[in-house]
Amino acid sequence: MKVVIIGGVAAGTKTAAKLLREDRSHQVQIITKSKDISYAGCGLPYYVGHVIEHREQLIVNTPQSFTDLTGVSVTTQTEAVAIDREKKVVMAVDAVTGERKEYPYDKAVIAVGARPFIPPVEGVALKNVFTMRTPEDAVALREAVDSGSIKRAVIVGGGFIGLEVAENLVSQGIRVTVIDMAEHILPGFDSEMQEYVENHLAEQGIMSFTNTKLEGVEGTESVEKVLTNRRPIKADAVILAIGIRPNTEFIRDSGLDLMPNGTIRVSQSMQTNDPDIYAVGDCACVTDAVTGEPLWSPMGSSANIEGRIAARHIAGKPVAYGGAVGTGICKLPNLHVGRTGLTEVAARERGYDVVSALTAVNDKAHYYPGAGTMFIKLIADRATRRLLGAQVLGTDKVDTVLDIAVTGLYGHATVDQLADMDLAYAPPFSTAIHPFDHAINVLLNKMEGALQSFTPAEYREGNAEGYEIVDTSQNPSIEGAEYVDLTEVNGVLPGWNPDAKMLLVCTKGRRAYLLQNRLQFYGYTNTKVLEGGTAFNGADLQ
Amino acid sequence: MKVVIIGGVAAGTKTAAKLLREDRSHQVQIITKSKDISYAGCGLPYYVGHVIEHREQLIVNTPQSFTDLTGVSVTTQTEAVAIDREKKVVMAVDAVTGERKEYPYDKAVIAVGARPFIPPVEGVALKNVFTMRTPEDAVALREAVDSGSIKRAVIVGGGFIGLEVAENLVSQGIRVTVIDMAEHILPGFDSEMQEYVENHLAEQGIMSFTNTKLEGVEGTESVEKVLTNRRPIKADAVILAIGIRPNTEFIRDSGLDLMPNGTIRVSQSMQTNDPDIYAVGDCACVTDAVTGEPLWSPMGSSANIEGRIAARHIAGKPVAYGGAVGTGICKLPNLHVGRTGLTEVAARERGYDVVSALTAVNDKAHYYPGAGTMFIKLIADRATRRLLGAQVLGTDKVDTVLDIAVTGLYGHATVDQLADMDLAYAPPFSTAIHPFDHAINVLLNKMEGALQSFTPAEYREGNAEGYEIVDTSQNPSIEGAEYVDLTEVNGVLPGWNPDAKMLLVCTKGRRAYLLQNRLQFYGYTNTKVLEGGTAFNGADLQ
Repeated sequence: MKVVIIGGVAAGTKTAAKLLREDRSHQVQIITKSKDISYAGCGLPYYVGHVIEHREQLIVNTPQSFTDLTGVSVTTQTEAVAIDREKKVVMAVDAVTGERKEYPYDKAVIAVGARPFIPPVEGVALKNVFTMRTPEDAVALREAVDSGSIKRAVIVGGGFIGLEVAENLVSQGIRVTVIDMAEHILPGFDSEMQEYVENHLAEQGIMSFTNTKLEGVEGTESVEKVLTNRRPIKADAVILAIGIRPNTEFIRDSGLDLMPNGTIRVSQSMQTNDPDIYAVGDCACVTDAVTGEPLWSPMGSSANIEGRIAARHIAGKPVAYGGAVGTGICKLPNLHVGRTGLTEVAARERGYDVVSALTAVNDKAHYYPGAGTMFIKLIADRATRRLLGAQVLGTDKVDTVLDIAVTGLYGHATVDQLADMDLAYAPPFSTAIHPFDHAINVLLNKMEGALQSFTPAEYREGNAEGYEIVDTSQNPSIEGAEYVDLTEVNGVLPGWNPDAKMLLVCTKGRRAYLLQNRLQFYGYTNTKVLEGGTAFNGADLQ
Repeated sequence: MKVVIIGGVAAGTKTAAKLLREDRSHQVQIITKSKDISYAGCGLPYYVGHVIEHREQLIVNTPQSFTDLTGVSVTTQTEAVAIDREKKVVMAVDAVTGERKEYPYDKAVIAVGARPFIPPVEGVALKNVFTMRTPEDAVALREAVDSGSIKRAVIVGGGFIGLEVAENLVSQGIRVTVIDMAEHILPGFDSEMQEYVENHLAEQGIMSFTNTKLEGVEGTESVEKVLTNRRPIKADAVILAIGIRPNTEFIRDSGLDLMPNGTIRVSQSMQTNDPDIYAVGDCACVTDAVTGEPLWSPMGSSANIEGRIAARHIAGKPVAYGGAVGTGICKLPNLHVGRTGLTEVAARERGYDVVSALTAVNDKAHYYPGAGTMFIKLIADRATRRLLGAQVLGTDKVDTVLDIAVTGLYGHATVDQLADMDLAYAPPFSTAIHPFDHAINVLLNKMEGALQSFTPAEYREGNAEGYEIVDTSQNPSIEGAEYVDLTEVNGVLPGWNPDAKMLLVCTKGRRAYLLQNRLQFYGYTNTKVLEGGTAFNGADLQ
């Protein structure tokens, strides 16, 4: 069987290699526009920051080494320009000679990936305007940084890639500003999580300007200033990390089903609507394993999974790809952030009867050195009691908590099923009540009515208006708040009526919950705990 | 309702506190033999090693602070000596005055924990013979270490506690030897994993003598020598970490169902066979969530879960505790080790049609600093395709991989359901094909027949006899082995018959798998890959 694979980074090479392992008698041909194949796109920001020192470390395989290893034929610098589905031929152009070529196929696999979106404003062609997609991009930015010519940089776009680049510039002493036209940075998180991260980054010296649109870049030879809908920003470099667009223009008239964003809709076997054509990687649109809706998952991890599925299906093996769940994790200065499944907002939009709880926990035994505070937001559906999503912020263990949630999402687990699990505990690794178990317990308490609370989002929306803040921390810190010592509450509180509206706040939420529990017993009916306590809401409570 | 809780460490305090949160009108009374309550037993080894500096850090609550926080009455230094089930009274003795007391109950909760087993040999009462169960134990050992009088220590028992103490002594320059009467240290792991850890510890300066039974301790005032069934060992200190025994002698004649090891059998609601008596923590025997069999889970994490369940049930709330799965994790010098579910041996004993695969993977993107090799052994049942257990060794991320497996075990997931999950990936956290996904793929390849392999255990059992070792690493290292360059195999191998018995070995197993795949295509029918490669089996291949 002749299989032509268009594109040679993660998804293309994975499909090709796996296909030849399934049956080495296949003729598998990769054609790709670029010079490199199989590079580590996710590592690029770390090359910029000298965390990864050598360019070669980013290249997983050269075309030759890949061919030697797998038996796949690789033709680089050759761009597919159309697919003739009737003749079953991929039409391509040699980027060097301009020559047209035809690649007949029995099966074709589209793995053309995506490219950075370049906004149509003036100045984006100036020197020191960068994107972050290929090894060349990273090499160019690092050379500029190493030359000492960059003191201030503006990152346009506060998604994972933009923030990873931000971290790797700040670590080299560059002043970094992030601008984003959305209300917040970190798409895919709920707004209270986004705000927490914005505040945190500001403390680390990275300012985020949101609702801020790039309107142009100014400079004589090189970047000097970034123009926005708000004020202009002085800068020696601009990194465009606004988002990516699938490279699917060449099949726009092919009759293959495209999504509104240009990605190619595929089945559970990664097939397009043409059973002889597959799509994998950043140009494909898979299924959301939580909702069953289409989901674009342009991640290196998804690319590998999808390539394996496509290759197995082409080889006649059984497959049934359940889809992705939108998992993402990102290292920021002194904070790791991760998310999976539906956000609270996305869950509401889909009509779920949403309940969420944000829990502040220790990531390790409190007495173990390096223990830090972690915030876990779980989102569930009251009706089915199913877990729908999770968002996690912390200095450690974010990946662990996230991966537990991911496994739960794939198992369509209810929060009850995820409670009381015998997760790994020893003081250097977690807490006797595991952070995930703890977060599930808080959510269950809330669903049962044992915990009456405002989420940080509800608090910001003004739901606590008319409530008096009661500080119940061991070391009270909220200026102007009443203080109640939990341990001294053994009856009605002098000066407080049973129907008093009290917002109970402590450091992480636990003492406030204990106080609420006592107050309820003594007849108080209008208390609310502020989820996440001062640890999460500190900035809003002063 | 009057609830008497016997025992006040993790399970007892958790039950008591939760019960009063459920309904503060309950009268909840803890009686406990010791002076402290609520201490961090799992942290003790780290106090010895000065990782935790202050004794107070080990004490979660004093009796007074616990009472203030929860409303629970606490009576220390009072030992329960019997339960009169007919009268519903706990009989106790004041340890100071010797006075007998009676505590009537509506519900009683037994949370008496366990104590270290002291072997009946001579010399165990000598100075510098320690156990590691209470803060006093840790304080005593640390004082001895800090005084400079200990140069050599012998740990008796190679379980988690013994090895944690070993790490914390070695870090202070003490020469540590571990002896264990079993064939290997690390109970609960399969033998090839145990051997790997023994070799690793030896490289870190901790010698393990197995099949070695403590026969006595010699010394004039203080420990000088440890006698065993093999040779005597010079030592200034002995730490007895042989195991623990439940403190259940006082109910031996109560008619409560005890297991042969003395633990109390409980239901899914933590009830004993007397519906008014519960048992929680190290003295209780719960259910194995994988097999449904009885399982003793004497861990701080289980204690907390069980306490919560018991309290809810006493309070009339719905509960259904699925049980534990035997998860454990331990930090050793430069290696983390963890396990959950059934071992391969335990699964075979129970009649499962066992398939297992040991996979060596990177724990992070190979180009990211600090990336290390991790070994994941997965155990599954061919018939139902269910995951049964996992064992993980590595320098990082052991907890994450373990917790994914735990979540899968609770979901009764098949290996197919655990494949292709969208787990958290970015270069600082994992690999594009997540370590767990990778291990599942290897297991699936093996179940499908695409990978023909010997496990390290099969190799050690001699199953590879008659096979010629073929080194297929990029940098061959196995002395005396044939070398085959995978990339040059494009047909029949000169000098090798199609039925040649070839054991394919590379560093981690991946290139060997690729070579096998090619050789199968060219007609070779008798090749086997050695799982784990030289990275795992190095010591056996030289």
